[in-house]
Amino acid sequence: MKHRFRILALLALGVLALGALVVAAACGGGDGDGDGNGAGGDLDAIAKARGLTPEDMKHALQQFVPPGKYDDYVMISSGGHSGQVFVIGMPSMRILKVIAAFTPEPWQGFGYGADWGDTVLEQGNPTTPAGTDLTWGDTHHPAISETGGEYDGRYIYINDRANGRVAMIDMRDFRVKQVLAVPNIQTSHGGMFVTPNSEYVHVSSKFPMPWPAGSYADVNEYKEKYRGASAWLKIDQETGRINLDESFEIEIPPYTQDLADAGKLASEGWGFIGSFNTEMATGGDAEGGEPLEAGASKNNFDFLHAINWKKAEGVIAAGKFEEMNGVKVIRLQTAIDEGLLYLIPEPKSPHGADVDPSGKYIVVGGKLDPNVTIYSFDKMQAAIEAKDFEGTDPFGVPILKFDSVMAGQVEVGAGPLHTQFDSKGHGYTSMFLASAIAKFTLGEDVVTTDEEPFKLIETIPVHYNIGHLATAEGDTVSPDDNYMVALNKWSIDRYAPIGPLHPQNFQLIDLKGGEGPLELIADMPIGIGEPHYTQIMKADKLKALEVYPPGTDALTMTTDPQAIEAGGERVERNGNTVEVWMSAQRSHFTPDILRVKEGNTVKLHITNVEQTRDATHGFAIADYNIQASLEPGETSDFEFVADKPGAYNFYCTEFCSALHLEMAGWFLVEPAAAAALR
Amino acid sequence: MKHRFRILALLALGVLALGALVVAAACGGGDGDGDGNGAGGDLDAIAKARGLTPEDMKHALQQFVPPGKYDDYVMISSGGHSGQVFVIGMPSMRILKVIAAFTPEPWQGFGYGADWGDTVLEQGNPTTPAGTDLTWGDTHHPAISETGGEYDGRYIYINDRANGRVAMIDMRDFRVKQVLAVPNIQTSHGGMFVTPNSEYVHVSSKFPMPWPAGSYADVNEYKEKYRGASAWLKIDQETGRINLDESFEIEIPPYTQDLADAGKLASEGWGFIGSFNTEMATGGDAEGGEPLEAGASKNNFDFLHAINWKKAEGVIAAGKFEEMNGVKVIRLQTAIDEGLLYLIPEPKSPHGADVDPSGKYIVVGGKLDPNVTIYSFDKMQAAIEAKDFEGTDPFGVPILKFDSVMAGQVEVGAGPLHTQFDSKGHGYTSMFLASAIAKFTLGEDVVTTDEEPFKLIETIPVHYNIGHLATAEGDTVSPDDNYMVALNKWSIDRYAPIGPLHPQNFQLIDLKGGEGPLELIADMPIGIGEPHYTQIMKADKLKALEVYPPGTDALTMTTDPQAIEAGGERVERNGNTVEVWMSAQRSHFTPDILRVKEGNTVKLHITNVEQTRDATHGFAIADYNIQASLEPGETSDFEFVADKPGAYNFYCTEFCSALHLEMAGWFLVEPAAAAALR
Repeated sequence: MKHRFRILALLALGVLALGALVVAAACGGGDGDGDGNGAGGDLDAIAKARGLTPEDMKHALQQFVPPGKYDDYVMISSGGHSGQVFVIGMPSMRILKVIAAFTPEPWQGFGYGADWGDTVLEQGNPTTPAGTDLTWGDTHHPAISETGGEYDGRYIYINDRANGRVAMIDMRDFRVKQVLAVPNIQTSHGGMFVTPNSEYVHVSSKFPMPWPAGSYADVNEYKEKYRGASAWLKIDQETGRINLDESFEIEIPPYTQDLADAGKLASEGWGFIGSFNTEMATGGDAEGGEPLEAGASKNNFDFLHAINWKKAEGVIAAGKFEEMNGVKVIRLQTAIDEGLLYLIPEPKSPHGADVDPSGKYIVVGGKLDPNVTIYSFDKMQAAIEAKDFEGTDPFGVPILKFDSVMAGQVEVGAGPLHTQFDSKGHGYTSMFLASAIAKFTLGEDVVTTDEEPFKLIETIPVHYNIGHLATAEGDTVSPDDNYMVALNKWSIDRYAPIGPLHPQNFQLIDLKGGEGPLELIADMPIGIGEPHYTQIMKADKLKALEVYPPGTDALTMTTDPQAIEAGGERVERNGNTVEVWMSAQRSHFTPDILRVKEGNTVKLHITNVEQTRDATHGFAIADYNIQASLEPGETSDFEFVADKPGAYNFYCTEFCSALHLEMAGWFLVEPAAAAALR
Repeated sequence: MKHRFRILALLALGVLALGALVVAAACGGGDGDGDGNGAGGDLDAIAKARGLTPEDMKHALQQFVPPGKYDDYVMISSGGHSGQVFVIGMPSMRILKVIAAFTPEPWQGFGYGADWGDTVLEQGNPTTPAGTDLTWGDTHHPAISETGGEYDGRYIYINDRANGRVAMIDMRDFRVKQVLAVPNIQTSHGGMFVTPNSEYVHVSSKFPMPWPAGSYADVNEYKEKYRGASAWLKIDQETGRINLDESFEIEIPPYTQDLADAGKLASEGWGFIGSFNTEMATGGDAEGGEPLEAGASKNNFDFLHAINWKKAEGVIAAGKFEEMNGVKVIRLQTAIDEGLLYLIPEPKSPHGADVDPSGKYIVVGGKLDPNVTIYSFDKMQAAIEAKDFEGTDPFGVPILKFDSVMAGQVEVGAGPLHTQFDSKGHGYTSMFLASAIAKFTLGEDVVTTDEEPFKLIETIPVHYNIGHLATAEGDTVSPDDNYMVALNKWSIDRYAPIGPLHPQNFQLIDLKGGEGPLELIADMPIGIGEPHYTQIMKADKLKALEVYPPGTDALTMTTDPQAIEAGGERVERNGNTVEVWMSAQRSHFTPDILRVKEGNTVKLHITNVEQTRDATHGFAIADYNIQASLEPGETSDFEFVADKPGAYNFYCTEFCSALHLEMAGWFLVEPAAAAALR
């Protein structure tokens, strides 16, 4: 194909240079009103006109990030049943990206014909049960990879609570690279957490299932045949992918395992999982049984599960496992025999289980108990060492004595759920029923202020019905003490009315170095999905690519074998197959006419040959349900059958240049028979 | 089924009352630091700590909406190739809702088994070509319904640029109720606009296609066999739905018709569509032809199309149409003969065509011309009356003389695209190449200041590469003069690095009553989709439902025949079909065990029997790809085959109560043969 000099393309490419000049000019100027210094009078006038109180004015200044300046933090938030993950700047609370994880998303070209997304989604379909094609997920708990107990900005893991899956997002390009259906888990919850050096990412089952996956049992055989699993999924350090061959599971009793957290520092090598429904209720209200939520709320204590994953590695190495549905499984009896699993009573219908930055304390909120309960890891170890058990559960798992391992309780209020921490020895617990956050002290060995241990310091109302909360760098060994975000489930009357489906409500709270009273800064509606949890990472840890190296396959992050440079465009026809190597460059696809016959298999390889930051091109074909996003340097591959005769416009879907609208072409599918068309 | 008193459900319902008490307490207090008045010193300290300039401080106060307070405006923005529509509060620039329009979205339960979304998506599939299942769209230009030329807050229309479709969103619940594949249009662009009293919503084709739809022709027969269409889609005033029977199309030449706008006041009864590629270039660079963008950019003038839709109604009434693919079509020759269509030269490769609030002026930006061109509607009418034509185009359409109808030109800068207006007689034009907005005056009969007509007043830089822009109430007959939003296509270096795919960048600009210099207030990243256009409506025009009346079918907005009240739950089995009437109420589904046999057809009717604002329940079944959002009062219907044996957890996906996690149940699919499972 001849290579041409295109004056129009150059004109379009000139956009950036011009843009840069304009910026320079703008940065030199003031605000245009000529005052040049001190805005006090202006501020009061604006506040008066807009009805802002002195407190509002302070909060405005605390939240505002001026145009062109960067946020200090990024929040990595789940999107709930949207199946996505959100990247949000903090303190501005602006959404930087909605990352498609389990749900097809056409802007990013995820699941609309390009091989990257189609491959990820296809690989994420469970093999048990057979024939399951999933096009959504319920993302709950993001976990940023860690090095030395600190977020390291490399990978994000996120679970699909609905379908027992895990996705991995590469923070080089903030795209999902793997969806894994975790064997023997139908619904997932516990975690996600990574171990402090990202050896494993953990997820455990929510509701148990007939076990192992692929078997069937009615719920009247719940205790006998249903089981849960604690999955320790091995992370490949180079790619971030989960390597199932080096992963393992531990069979656990058919309770409803809930939130989980990794041990760290003092408790490194252990993991902790809360649970409820140790009653093993299964509902059946229409069959004369009790409603599930009533049957599941009878016991005064459920069980915190303490798991020794370091020791479990040795058990696997010793071959004491069974292979089940492609993963090594340590059976429950083996886990008991080898001292991998212990149960600890936790009041009542607990939800959160959170490890403090020192790793010395595990905090549990019992949603039907007004206290948070704080356990001592040292006491747990001593009790295990001394075999100081109060007996076993119905499956033979040893139960530690509550009084032996409990370090303290703090009465915080109604419906405590999750706890986050600062570096001063404080815990912050969300309370769903009270619509508030409680601040309290942990044990004296970690409290750095002169406050008494295990005391309630204060509560702050939130609006409304908070689920999780998160402090900056909150799951690391060194939390920052400046910001906290409340993830409120209900917003009710907080926003202008836009129908019966309300947004969720994030609230930004000033932590004041862990020392002053908590103060609400701002509300942020989440009008997409229902975030469950977020981690907040310093923005200076971001190390994302600005463009891809030329010809990159976004799935493998290596050079795509079908990548071309400008000038390398061509079409090859072999029998029923038409193969096309196409380039995209402002403002042109080459070739811009594709002629095929009805029924041809089309193999299309498109390379965005640009290396200019933000010079993304989209590629869509009308009526063919094909839509890709081609970032600078990316090569994308498509294969489909030209099963619809007709003349179809294809075009660049991402506004790229002054002649973007002219960046189009024709996909001509000649009818197999003239009679097929009128 | 017996009706029980459930203490736990009551406990959960108590959440709201408690929440309300907490709010009341919070509202009485200050910010907790005891200063109580005047925040001047605090403000300076915060600004210093955060590096805010005096201008930044002003802008922070201009943008900030305090927690719990409402925004003054809502922006209704397209989402580009995400296929969605965004509702954004202004000035805070917070996203209140991402509305699923053309793309399945599980949070809203759109396209995941519930009848509302599945019906809308299915009905939106084109019949030509046959076998087209579309699961995305490229939303471009939202149009809020109008009464008397003012946004009336009833309905939103949005086009799918990729696949020639239109969606209707009901502003009572901000849900999409109709997706219509517009006959004889493959790719759509022109508009959307509504006529000033919402008689019609208009969309026209982007690229022409072999015409009518369903025929085939190679692009070498482009001039002879390809045609575009201007579609006038009749709006049912009660439901907002498009009634195709009362709609009509006008055949137009095979140019690339572009943005369009409705006449209003002086020009009511007319519509205007810009165009480019009057060269009728088709590309073919790999076949020895010219690149499409070069071939399409040769002419110094393209054609603004002026269409008399009021007169066209009479032509339809007189029976002068042909029925084509289910819609009445006025053929091109008829349109010429009846005086419905006129062409007006517009320089060069134009994009925007915008009617000013008085309806007297139509402003066109030629993206390869440094001027905006302002046409006078009165002059057009005079020229038409006098038959003052410079001839016809190749299809016989009369062309008005440029000099006869042009009222003025203003040299604004490189790459002018779209124009919005204030009430003082100013136009504001976006310039893609210059990355700036130009402010200029229109004709002296609409300028209310002492500025000269048709003069450039100022330009303001934007960051970067702006497409559309919008002023508050900007498409109405009475724009507000306070805010303008720039919809920038590139963000490049404006945000912390999150990979090669950059967010778009909205910028909020202070219009200062149309009198002062323009001033940038804030940046807002759009990290989902690529908004093309937005309309900005006063928030006090919102009249959305808080909850649905009991048993509402969200598709029809009438009572669902399958709705039940609490206590009306039941299961009926008929042959191979199991039909279930289920209720959802904090914290329970009744029944909570569903027993079926593999292969059964399951008909499920779920009613959220609550009437509490924000008491939404989700409903998902693991591994069955089913996910619905049930707003308070809503009934949703599902029909599917239990084709996978197993015990599947179903659960409430929307956090609803303290015992939300217990709001679950079991879908037991007994295997057809024991041998089918191990």
